[in-house]
Amino acid sequence: MRIVKLTEESKKDILKNMLKRSPDNYGTYEATVKEIVENVHQNGDKALFEYTHKFDKADINASNVKVTDEEIEEAYKEVDAELLEVIRKAIKNIKEYHELQKRNSWITTKENGIMLGQKITPLKYVGVYVPGGKAAYPSTVLMNVVPAHVAGVENIIMTTPCDATGKVYPTTLVAAKEAGVTAVYKAGGAQAIAALAFGTESIPKVDKIVGPGNIFVALAKRTVYGHVSIDSIAGPSEILVLSDGSADPKYIAADLLSQAEHDELASAILVTTDAEFANKVSEWVDKFTEKLSRKEIIQKSLDNFGYILLADTLEEGIDVTNEIAPEHLEIMTKNPYDTMTKIRNAGAMFLGEYSSEPLGDYFAGPNHVLPTNGTARFFSPLGVDDFIKKSSIISYSRDALKDVYKDVAKFADSEYLTAHANSIRVRFED
Amino acid sequence: MRIVKLTEESKKDILKNMLKRSPDNYGTYEATVKEIVENVHQNGDKALFEYTHKFDKADINASNVKVTDEEIEEAYKEVDAELLEVIRKAIKNIKEYHELQKRNSWITTKENGIMLGQKITPLKYVGVYVPGGKAAYPSTVLMNVVPAHVAGVENIIMTTPCDATGKVYPTTLVAAKEAGVTAVYKAGGAQAIAALAFGTESIPKVDKIVGPGNIFVALAKRTVYGHVSIDSIAGPSEILVLSDGSADPKYIAADLLSQAEHDELASAILVTTDAEFANKVSEWVDKFTEKLSRKEIIQKSLDNFGYILLADTLEEGIDVTNEIAPEHLEIMTKNPYDTMTKIRNAGAMFLGEYSSEPLGDYFAGPNHVLPTNGTARFFSPLGVDDFIKKSSIISYSRDALKDVYKDVAKFADSEYLTAHANSIRVRFED
Repeated sequence: MRIVKLTEESKKDILKNMLKRSPDNYGTYEATVKEIVENVHQNGDKALFEYTHKFDKADINASNVKVTDEEIEEAYKEVDAELLEVIRKAIKNIKEYHELQKRNSWITTKENGIMLGQKITPLKYVGVYVPGGKAAYPSTVLMNVVPAHVAGVENIIMTTPCDATGKVYPTTLVAAKEAGVTAVYKAGGAQAIAALAFGTESIPKVDKIVGPGNIFVALAKRTVYGHVSIDSIAGPSEILVLSDGSADPKYIAADLLSQAEHDELASAILVTTDAEFANKVSEWVDKFTEKLSRKEIIQKSLDNFGYILLADTLEEGIDVTNEIAPEHLEIMTKNPYDTMTKIRNAGAMFLGEYSSEPLGDYFAGPNHVLPTNGTARFFSPLGVDDFIKKSSIISYSRDALKDVYKDVAKFADSEYLTAHANSIRVRFED
Repeated sequence: MRIVKLTEESKKDILKNMLKRSPDNYGTYEATVKEIVENVHQNGDKALFEYTHKFDKADINASNVKVTDEEIEEAYKEVDAELLEVIRKAIKNIKEYHELQKRNSWITTKENGIMLGQKITPLKYVGVYVPGGKAAYPSTVLMNVVPAHVAGVENIIMTTPCDATGKVYPTTLVAAKEAGVTAVYKAGGAQAIAALAFGTESIPKVDKIVGPGNIFVALAKRTVYGHVSIDSIAGPSEILVLSDGSADPKYIAADLLSQAEHDELASAILVTTDAEFANKVSEWVDKFTEKLSRKEIIQKSLDNFGYILLADTLEEGIDVTNEIAPEHLEIMTKNPYDTMTKIRNAGAMFLGEYSSEPLGDYFAGPNHVLPTNGTARFFSPLGVDDFIKKSSIISYSRDALKDVYKDVAKFADSEYLTAHANSIRVRFED
């Protein structure tokens, strides 16, 4: 891995280079996606099934678009029993963590008859998009479905493409069933997103669509945003390891590679104050890469977006971390708890040598759907909050309103809104 | 007001008519706005000041773009002392309500050395856009700034257009100062949004932009979304009153008109089970409208998007309310608390005869920035949550990871991600 001295200039270059990973070439497909979305909006099932025939080469119609109980049973037979046990343990952890994110509706009262409050209501229908084939990571199913389930969403509607014979990847079905999905439909791409956003004869209209997908899926989600809510559109994966040289370089190297293997746009960065340690990590990275099945992807990712940054002090390292605002941050310092208090911007923070990042991808409980590409400055991990909405409650007694009605009317007058003022005064004046 | 019997058909027509209020003619201005945003992004202050000269006819430069303490003092002299007192009372209420929305970071631990958690961090820089002139409602300033302040945002940067002499509307400045704004800059339109999103020599780059504006502002916010976060783009205002005929028809009429006066696209709807009551409300609407200063706007709003809907039962009324998902909902039933429990979708709920909607616009405490146009199905009022973000925390001891490392590696293997599996195994196997 390249080793770079951290300076104002190198930092600027790196931040600029990282932003190159933002998807900017959406334009090319925009018209196609808009046409697909509009067609499904207007023609429902008919358009949906035509696209499924065209893109997935599958003969899907109203009678077989919904995955049956028999298909799910069949899928269970094809999934490794040990893996099923692991999935169940992971679900337990994810559920426990997300339960702690739940919030209650609340009220506050005053003795003159004022009640104010905030009512929490789960969304009624949520759509979860899951990519097809090998890209159908069961962990993705869990991380998108479990928080919705915990939030209390009654109808969790999954769509995922089937193969040419109409079959859905079995691990996807098993993960869906275990995580609490209400129904699975065989539909993929932009047409599936449109079906979820507007509803068709077969597929119910939802309030929010979550889940990853290719560029057509991402564009379709952007297109339907506003008609429904969507999760944020994820960019390429990232890891930043912040180390004072106190951890095992072998572990750090392995962790950097775990993100570099995702795709060529993924970014793996080590920020360290220890030059000798930097060399050791770099050596381990080379050693491991040789033996890994995805070594070509890894090499490209490291060449393009991999860095070992040498900082003069830990404080400098913390500053650059906050500027990069990484999706995954491993804090490998002598006192990671203390360092953590100084981190403003990171999707998820992994503390100490034994909190390897993939532990969070699969198992520990917190969500692996995280803000990427510097958006941890203002976005949060997917969670229960994404599947509820709030309504304010205002209740005033006659006495309470009487006490303040002149103030309210005065404020309305100052904004030249006479009907606003009238609605207050009419209750107390002739 | 037109009185319509609630049927499946009339409901469908009304829901369709309401959606006509969505802004769909953005396309015309898109290219212009993109050019402005790009120019400010590339050329900073220079471009910003050129646009200010062009659109606001004001001679603004680096030395006078930031509002000075003297200008703020001057503004105080121009604001009615009584109004200032009302503003201060309103701020107190808004602050108290939003304080109750604050959440703590939390952790959960297990005795084998697992710590999981969620860290809450306020955004560091927030931009608040405030329209110029008479449209500069002081209540808007309070409702956008106070929640950011309560959330703990250190830098609340306001931009607002000045007049041709370089002066900012005094009530805006006073409201800004009272609500806790850090700095005010004289900049309006798409160019102000671009300045906040990318920063210029004079104006700091922010993490999130909130606040209302015209179509150029709305489009610019959509354009910079992703580089920064934004609030949702508000549609025309709405009120729905759900009544069993037990409230005073005069009050209801006045409340309907308070929203109809906002603009011609605003919508005022009464849903009631009582036909006689419906007639009385309609009569009062006519009587009041005659005397109101904005009667032309009101008339158009009522003609286009105003309805009195006659429902057979309260349950039917509740159902249509949930389908419309109004921004403001007044519940005027014999037992509004009971009715409230059945409402899934509404931005803010006003309970009983003395909780007139404008009370919430100005004074009660809950936010008046609310989801419009049916988006209360999945969006929430603006609040403290909009000015914080979360980071997950994962900390495992060696023992804790050892207990589960085979499970995690197994899961990674099932997804064909060998570098993920390696990063776990390397800690326990050779």
